[in-house]
Amino acid sequence: MSAAATSKIAAFAAQTQWDDIPAHVRHEAKRSLLNYFATAIAGSGEAAVATSLAVLAPFAGAADCRIIGRAERVDMPLAAYLNAISANVFDYDDTHQETVIHPTAPIAPALFAHAERQRCTGASLLRAFVLGGEIECRIGNAVSPSHYARGWHITSTCGVFGAAAGIGVLLGLSQEQHAWSIGNAAAQASGLVETLGTMSKSISVGNAARNGILSALLAENNFSGPADPLAGERGFLSVFSDQPTVNRLTDGLGEDWEIAKNTYKPYPAAIVLHPVIEACIQLHREAGLRSEDVAEVELTGHPLLRQRADRAEAATGRLSQVSAQHAIAIALRRGKAGLMEFNDAAAAETLGDGIRPNVKFIDDAGRALETVRMLVRTQQGRSHDIEITAAKGGPLNPMTDAELEEKLAELAAYRGFNRDVGAIAEAVWSLDGAEDAGEIMALANMAG
Amino acid sequence: MSAAATSKIAAFAAQTQWDDIPAHVRHEAKRSLLNYFATAIAGSGEAAVATSLAVLAPFAGAADCRIIGRAERVDMPLAAYLNAISANVFDYDDTHQETVIHPTAPIAPALFAHAERQRCTGASLLRAFVLGGEIECRIGNAVSPSHYARGWHITSTCGVFGAAAGIGVLLGLSQEQHAWSIGNAAAQASGLVETLGTMSKSISVGNAARNGILSALLAENNFSGPADPLAGERGFLSVFSDQPTVNRLTDGLGEDWEIAKNTYKPYPAAIVLHPVIEACIQLHREAGLRSEDVAEVELTGHPLLRQRADRAEAATGRLSQVSAQHAIAIALRRGKAGLMEFNDAAAAETLGDGIRPNVKFIDDAGRALETVRMLVRTQQGRSHDIEITAAKGGPLNPMTDAELEEKLAELAAYRGFNRDVGAIAEAVWSLDGAEDAGEIMALANMAG
Repeated sequence: MSAAATSKIAAFAAQTQWDDIPAHVRHEAKRSLLNYFATAIAGSGEAAVATSLAVLAPFAGAADCRIIGRAERVDMPLAAYLNAISANVFDYDDTHQETVIHPTAPIAPALFAHAERQRCTGASLLRAFVLGGEIECRIGNAVSPSHYARGWHITSTCGVFGAAAGIGVLLGLSQEQHAWSIGNAAAQASGLVETLGTMSKSISVGNAARNGILSALLAENNFSGPADPLAGERGFLSVFSDQPTVNRLTDGLGEDWEIAKNTYKPYPAAIVLHPVIEACIQLHREAGLRSEDVAEVELTGHPLLRQRADRAEAATGRLSQVSAQHAIAIALRRGKAGLMEFNDAAAAETLGDGIRPNVKFIDDAGRALETVRMLVRTQQGRSHDIEITAAKGGPLNPMTDAELEEKLAELAAYRGFNRDVGAIAEAVWSLDGAEDAGEIMALANMAG
Repeated sequence: MSAAATSKIAAFAAQTQWDDIPAHVRHEAKRSLLNYFATAIAGSGEAAVATSLAVLAPFAGAADCRIIGRAERVDMPLAAYLNAISANVFDYDDTHQETVIHPTAPIAPALFAHAERQRCTGASLLRAFVLGGEIECRIGNAVSPSHYARGWHITSTCGVFGAAAGIGVLLGLSQEQHAWSIGNAAAQASGLVETLGTMSKSISVGNAARNGILSALLAENNFSGPADPLAGERGFLSVFSDQPTVNRLTDGLGEDWEIAKNTYKPYPAAIVLHPVIEACIQLHREAGLRSEDVAEVELTGHPLLRQRADRAEAATGRLSQVSAQHAIAIALRRGKAGLMEFNDAAAAETLGDGIRPNVKFIDDAGRALETVRMLVRTQQGRSHDIEITAAKGGPLNPMTDAELEEKLAELAAYRGFNRDVGAIAEAVWSLDGAEDAGEIMALANMAG
């Protein structure tokens, strides 16, 4: 079993055809890409992108590829690097919930950069995305949960495999070359949770996309690697996990699609906060509750809600994204929770709110992550008791296609994007019929 | 203590002056660089270098920098990447014995590439090399021994910090920027022991040099990172070591110089084989012993000798470098043990030797690595009993400066290098007085 793990994954990448991919998986891939363009446009003005571009541009070759949400062009690996950073910088991108991988940020930028440089059809790109994403999430499953818990930034460490496999599919690598590409990716897997909330995080996400491309290109040129870089004695799984489960790599491969379990965030905050935000928006809209009326809030939720998000003092935009206290305060002030509600100004605005010190957490390990019970007592002596059983965006209540289009429009507006986002959505929904997948990039960069 | 670890290392990098570096440390740095040019010239014709150059050249910018042992020029990060691969590809480069880090391959290529692009003095470059190497080895000490044992390729994982710190010194980063540079490096630390003996290994070594440069350049542009990327809760040490020893980072910093403990190999084989090879060469030279006369060999050595090098079937050049059976057979055939003795042809030549199945190992945990007792019984019924107490190249019997010059000449001849290696040696020995450190690169590339 173990000796064959990389071979099986490589065979899956080399052999799976477009017709082997079920319709619901194909559609989920399009949804992932639509969400990708939304978050990449939103992030493209951030300093992590602008500084990376300024520092790295002198070391780039032919400017074949576009940068989403910007006017510059750069070479293929750098375009992939920058677009991956944009897509992930707000942590507003997609989530494979079992692993907390953001699957698309490392893969899609690599594939579209390749498509711009070497033309491929939309169906080819979608197939490459699905196979790359599937391999990425399965590797994530096999190293979880100890991998992330120990401190690996799983989007980066597993993302490089997804990009390598996806580009390998577009290049038409043989099974043996796919195995080498996986080995080349294993040699480059990196990224630390410790960097979250800082610019350094963006480096490993960008590298996952860039280095995935190079892993596959090197393998195409017979740059060879170890026999079983995933499950070998000192392969990726044993080094990057305290308790790897090798069978998760291949159990149900080609039948049970991990990448089809992808989810999308309606709010740019930690997943654990989504039911809380939803409860607040409902109370704001339906009961007229306002932040200044609140005396006390009691949250009953999965223990991770408290562990991740009990941050009464969060004073920056970054930290406000993981602060239940801020999320409640701002959602009850404004009745919404977009990027403008989780920036430095918004965090400063709620910092003195009476709500902040008056949020209590009650752990209930029996609850799912997408649920919460919120009890609010007001200054006027009233109580509101609200239960969210399936927060929007979670597996039980996915964002609809229309909601994803709205997210795209909202994030484009946030960025001041000067192009027609409807055309991007249309191109994504019809991507499987496109002769030239790279054409979307001409809709998604900023007009000069 | 822990919260301050990165700060202390960053302060050391930002504040240590040339005058603070003792003469013996400066001289050891020159020895490291001479050995670097030797191994980089030797490796520069390998497929790992040529294929990397072919695949990556389309994605390079201004061709400011030379490639050692080759005629092409490429941009700064790619030159660093390729020269690091050349220096390390044969594992014939230097060794910090406590960690088994090859300290120079990730650092020197970065510094010389910088020197070619942005001119700096030889003393500046030497200072950057010493401080980068010191930080690299100290981080290695702090994660050892579990780090390498678990499967991390320590030259790559720690090398990126050395290159980042060294380039940071040349850029004159502030203490805060050095800390960010270390964070940027932590986000990129990668490399697996599983890839040893394959081309994939070279990717992580090249990346260490390239990504170290980018870590420092990003930090110079205020691309910020976590407060304590080394010793933070989920920082590099806790994630990359099962038993980190944080105090090894800073104990005796600036007084006890790890980089001055660097050693150089007289033979392109595993360190554990060096006393064995030396015993064979002595018997060949002094007792006239030849491989065809040998009936049986008994080796009494440190247990690692058996664990690493008991490989009677080694059939490739790569594997022959870690095969005691091949090393004995070839050294007793030819009376020498250079690169030509550890290639595919040499391995094939000894594969049928009667010696191969007749080597016995006796473990003696009380022995140092650089010792061996070798007992040889011949077909003619004679016995040879030889004790090597301090193999050449180990800490007790370092290669002399003259021997390093001979190594340079020998490896240049192996590569068919068409330039005067005496000029390289002279430039290295007088580097501390050089106005332009990059000038050595004009002596070390291949004439067109």
